[in-house]
Amino acid sequence: MREEIKSKMVEKEINGTIEDPRLKAITSSIRVVPDFPKPGIMFNDITTLLLQPKVFKDVIDMFVERYKGMRIHAVAGIEARGFIFGPPVALAIEAKFIPLRKPKKLPGEVISEKYVLEYGKDCLEMHVGALEAHERVLIIDDFVATGGTLSAAIRLIERAGGEVVECACLLGLPKFKVRTSPLFQKISLIYIRYHYPLELNNFQNVVLINCRSPASLMASQ
Amino acid sequence: MREEIKSKMVEKEINGTIEDPRLKAITSSIRVVPDFPKPGIMFNDITTLLLQPKVFKDVIDMFVERYKGMRIHAVAGIEARGFIFGPPVALAIEAKFIPLRKPKKLPGEVISEKYVLEYGKDCLEMHVGALEAHERVLIIDDFVATGGTLSAAIRLIERAGGEVVECACLLGLPKFKVRTSPLFQKISLIYIRYHYPLELNNFQNVVLINCRSPASLMASQ
Repeated sequence: MREEIKSKMVEKEINGTIEDPRLKAITSSIRVVPDFPKPGIMFNDITTLLLQPKVFKDVIDMFVERYKGMRIHAVAGIEARGFIFGPPVALAIEAKFIPLRKPKKLPGEVISEKYVLEYGKDCLEMHVGALEAHERVLIIDDFVATGGTLSAAIRLIERAGGEVVECACLLGLPKFKVRTSPLFQKISLIYIRYHYPLELNNFQNVVLINCRSPASLMASQ
Repeated sequence: MREEIKSKMVEKEINGTIEDPRLKAITSSIRVVPDFPKPGIMFNDITTLLLQPKVFKDVIDMFVERYKGMRIHAVAGIEARGFIFGPPVALAIEAKFIPLRKPKKLPGEVISEKYVLEYGKDCLEMHVGALEAHERVLIIDDFVATGGTLSAAIRLIERAGGEVVECACLLGLPKFKVRTSPLFQKISLIYIRYHYPLELNNFQNVVLINCRSPASLMASQ
């Protein structure tokens, strides 16, 4: 299912020469809004993707194709856009769905983890009892920027005794640094925006989902 | 598909004598947490339902069975729990998904509507351009308490030129007063919590989804 390849193959992949017929419509459906939520931030808006039922379905299908054979017990979705992509994947692979929420939103007993965002600070909470020990968990969010939110999510799952199989995001920005957190074992992405300066070292541990044929690619060190 | 019935039949329905084999597991999977988010509020926690993949799927199936033939163009989900139930329904009926979000979350140009909550005030926003004129819209949230949030959602859809076909919620509390808003044409519920004093007048315009056979029920005036 997976092979280690050299950095130049990652570049080739990033430049779009390996084709998945679904990828073009997915990437072109994501709108970039400048200066949101504050000046200088180029915000990747996935709500325009959701307006195209076929494209939205393709995204879910690509995740499901990757994860359906991996014995995932739970899909944990990060508030709020992880709630949009997580449940359809959970339903398709017959896993439970665990919402990881902003503070004071979950009514039961919680554990919480603080984290630093690209533009601010925040905290994620998870219900005590949502996971059983050794359950295999997929974490889903819409995109990864610095990896701070995903790192907090991983810490929550592991504190609850779960095993994080992978973090899946629709979109990644090359500014994320998966190596900065020892927690990051693996992250899967459907698409990487490369209008940022490319730092190939950041793609270590990244699986690009491009799996009409099961040819997921992993960047080598 | 639908028939007008008398109030006593609504009572019969509410008392659970009309059976859907899926309903028992759905209702028992919703946890009631007392005094959240503040003293005196009995909070209906649907996160425990999401931990049971089969039960979560049953909820989505019941919505899909009701709406798949209704020429719905768009499903509008209310942040944040409407994001959990809306997208699987939208994908299944091949409709687009429109997130109705809390203020300052959507990056593009928005229209907004303020509303009064059971415990506080809030505002919903929708992207300009998400809807085309005369598109038929289903609004989804996890539950309805007073109907204030749904009323704001209806106003947003109608301001954008859309037609609200129905509001669908998993759970309703009999304290809601659908007649208080002229906007409320119809609301569908899978389940009504009746540990509150029952006011049958509130059930006017309510469709109880119990549709293993397509026998949806509508309360008469």
